[in-house]
Amino acid sequence: MSGRAVDRPAGPSRRAVLGGAGAGLAVGAAGGAWGRRAWAQAPAADAGAALGGARVPFHGPRQAGIVEPAQARVEWAAFDLLSSTRRDGLAALLRTWSAAAARMAAGEPAAEGENQIALDAGPSSLTVTFGFGATLFDKAGLADRRPEALAALPAFPGDALDPARSGGDLWVQIGADDALVAVHALRVLVRLATGLAAPRWLMSGFARTPGATPHPMTGRNLMGQVDGTNNPRPQDAGFDAAVFATGPDWMAGGSYAVLRRIRMLLEGWDTLPLDRQERIIGRRKSDGAPLSGGPDAVERTPVDLAATDPDGVLRIAPDAHVRVAAAASNGGAAMLRRGFSFHDGLLPDGSPDAGLLFAAYQADPAHGFVPVQQRLARGDGLSRYLRHEASALFAVPPGAPEGGYVGQPLLEG
Amino acid sequence: MSGRAVDRPAGPSRRAVLGGAGAGLAVGAAGGAWGRRAWAQAPAADAGAALGGARVPFHGPRQAGIVEPAQARVEWAAFDLLSSTRRDGLAALLRTWSAAAARMAAGEPAAEGENQIALDAGPSSLTVTFGFGATLFDKAGLADRRPEALAALPAFPGDALDPARSGGDLWVQIGADDALVAVHALRVLVRLATGLAAPRWLMSGFARTPGATPHPMTGRNLMGQVDGTNNPRPQDAGFDAAVFATGPDWMAGGSYAVLRRIRMLLEGWDTLPLDRQERIIGRRKSDGAPLSGGPDAVERTPVDLAATDPDGVLRIAPDAHVRVAAAASNGGAAMLRRGFSFHDGLLPDGSPDAGLLFAAYQADPAHGFVPVQQRLARGDGLSRYLRHEASALFAVPPGAPEGGYVGQPLLEG
Ligand code: HEM
Ligand code: HEM
Repeated sequence: MSGRAVDRPAGPSRRAVLGGAGAGLAVGAAGGAWGRRAWAQAPAADAGAALGGARVPFHGPRQAGIVEPAQARVEWAAFDLLSSTRRDGLAALLRTWSAAAARMAAGEPAAEGENQIALDAGPSSLTVTFGFGATLFDKAGLADRRPEALAALPAFPGDALDPARSGGDLWVQIGADDALVAVHALRVLVRLATGLAAPRWLMSGFARTPGATPHPMTGRNLMGQVDGTNNPRPQDAGFDAAVFATGPDWMAGGSYAVLRRIRMLLEGWDTLPLDRQERIIGRRKSDGAPLSGGPDAVERTPVDLAATDPDGVLRIAPDAHVRVAAAASNGGAAMLRRGFSFHDGLLPDGSPDAGLLFAAYQADPAHGFVPVQQRLARGDGLSRYLRHEASALFAVPPGAPEGGYVGQPLLEG
Repeated sequence: MSGRAVDRPAGPSRRAVLGGAGAGLAVGAAGGAWGRRAWAQAPAADAGAALGGARVPFHGPRQAGIVEPAQARVEWAAFDLLSSTRRDGLAALLRTWSAAAARMAAGEPAAEGENQIALDAGPSSLTVTFGFGATLFDKAGLADRRPEALAALPAFPGDALDPARSGGDLWVQIGADDALVAVHALRVLVRLATGLAAPRWLMSGFARTPGATPHPMTGRNLMGQVDGTNNPRPQDAGFDAAVFATGPDWMAGGSYAVLRRIRMLLEGWDTLPLDRQERIIGRRKSDGAPLSGGPDAVERTPVDLAATDPDGVLRIAPDAHVRVAAAASNGGAAMLRRGFSFHDGLLPDGSPDAGLLFAAYQADPAHGFVPVQQRLARGDGLSRYLRHEASALFAVPPGAPEGGYVGQPLLEG
């Protein structure tokens, strides 16, 4: 895990992250004529190269970008197939995309003749994750292969969804610790889709830059809360069963991603007194410790939903977010959250167009996001300060082995 | 200069950048109750804290955010005074803003009761820079103090300016190596302006994350060019005279910032062959070396505008950007460029809404940006791939001493 701070305590990663100056130089050597010339000037790799040189391999049993810590910058792009694109065209696109993603994740040029704008930056922990929307299957003549878990999400109370920023046939998540690296990968993938698929919507977000805090710790969202503490961890019993699907065949080892663009009503939130903010979540703001734990509790102190004050009042309020969202309140429903903050300027009324690009990965949304959001939308104290503005659900297939591409078992199976 | 990579070879900074783990801990100690609790959990400051702990002092003879390397994230915000705001209200705003900026730059909470969302992050090289637009002076009853150098920029051929994203009474530039730190500072300053000034427009941009390249080097823009090489450097003779104003009185040691939101027509650019891209700039793409220098040239090899090929053809084309923009082609006109890339998604036609948040600092725009842009807009090969979409000009006063605020000599003088 050298080369970047771990923002969330996700435990040992499933996928080795190679980093450090040595890896950085390897990247340069593999970079073709471009890479050689630019890197030949380097007097010596210095300590700073650790961030840029950190690599997350694209190939593997699972796609990268699910269990790895959130990178400093993310780009989400949804695409729709052109009406002329058939199953073979989709296969060609996914093959090209996978090959380009694998090369970029290794710090190599994506393709011959591409406009290499991030030329001397290392991969900076670049991950590229592909997802398939429900609408893809009809269009590609694969209607009989559509997983049941891709059934449309129900409407939730309070939803204010913009169809133009929701859904999509294909989804690409690009994360990197350097913005130019992420934006470059996005440009490459958009150009490679020409003639086969067109962008439907794009969203950009951010998480912590490695090193911004003095020690690795869970990141904060735009409300200021430590966010991600009670995520399931890879070393936990039941993690794989909760997060990764076992079928249908081509989805074994894949996951389902629910995306929600959740705007925060920050004007109201920012003026709430601290104790109100804490009551609404059920955790202390300073360090994320649960309110059930008393003054000595720390972030990782287990939440005790039954704990009461001496006068019998529940320490974690009935409508506190962590109570309403907890697996224990939802028949065991669990998901891996991996969100990013967004800040897209101001709305016409002057309030910030900012909030959370919420992403949850689970083996089946019907036993993950759906029941939890059903309760949150009704009974969560936080909902008053949120507006769900866009929504999407994608099947995220398993990873591809070397030489293969994401989705190959579906498209060639 | 510990704690962050220097993206552009700007030479020794005028302002000490304090960094490293030690500085990070000092930040925590100064952080009040919040800071103490959150940081008390830290087992020990680790190497990663260097980025977060890097501080750029707010106070000093010059404002921070001009000669310092561009940070990973920038927020530009323009404000207009409310019609009820008079000179004393403006003074109060600038006093409050300066105090908050100084505290945040030191890693301290901005104000009592603020919603501290970047709680455990260090200042991450935060700089806050304030500027005054021409329209400010009438509104604040200071029309007779408006500097001549703030005269409206002329219209340039090809300008496609959006008035809603141009101009403004006040400008704030916020840069930090962590996005949450920058966004937090923006929220604080917007809230502190309530009742006195309202945001007019906002733009977000990025430059390289420290450490993304194996050695500090000049950054690249979204066209992929090494951008910033022939910037004047603080150690150069004539640097101060070119960049910093000597008057009027309250502006001595200040500078004038010209801002342009320049969209790049990347669809066209990305498909140009490499040699065309290089000819249009006059420099090699791989390493930024001038085309006048032959194969052994490096980025810092001086440009020779007279050099010809054996067959007498100018090596740097007549319409090459570096020829048309050079001081030698513009009667010595010089400026310090400190731009950031922006990528704001897609336009309705599917092309990227992306390019350069161009910023140039100079002692007087009439002998800096204006003549250069007049020539570029007519004769520059690059102009075909650019669209200037927004424009602003601000007087950036000198820095404030401890206990003072930016603009005090104007408002109380
Ligand atoms: C902008 C919207 C949201 C914000 C600001 C937010 C914030 C938080 C915070 C601060 C925590 C406590 C720390 C932690 O364990 O991560 C938390 C926990 C959690 N949130 Fe959210 N959340 C949001 C939306 C959602 C949504 C839409 C869902 C799912 C439908 C969700 C599911 C959960 C779950 C399952 C937990 C863990 C509860 C536990 O077992 O302790 N959150 N959230
Ligand atoms: C998106 C728009 C622009 C791009 C992509 C761009 C790119 C570049 C590049 C790659 C260089 C060569 C490296 C360097 O010395 O920094 C350069 C140089 C320069 N540019 Fe630009 N530029 C843009 C707009 C402008 C504008 C609007 C101005 C001023 C009106 C300007 C003024 C200069 C100057 C003065 C130089 C140095 C020339 C020399 O003396 O060698 N540029 N630019």
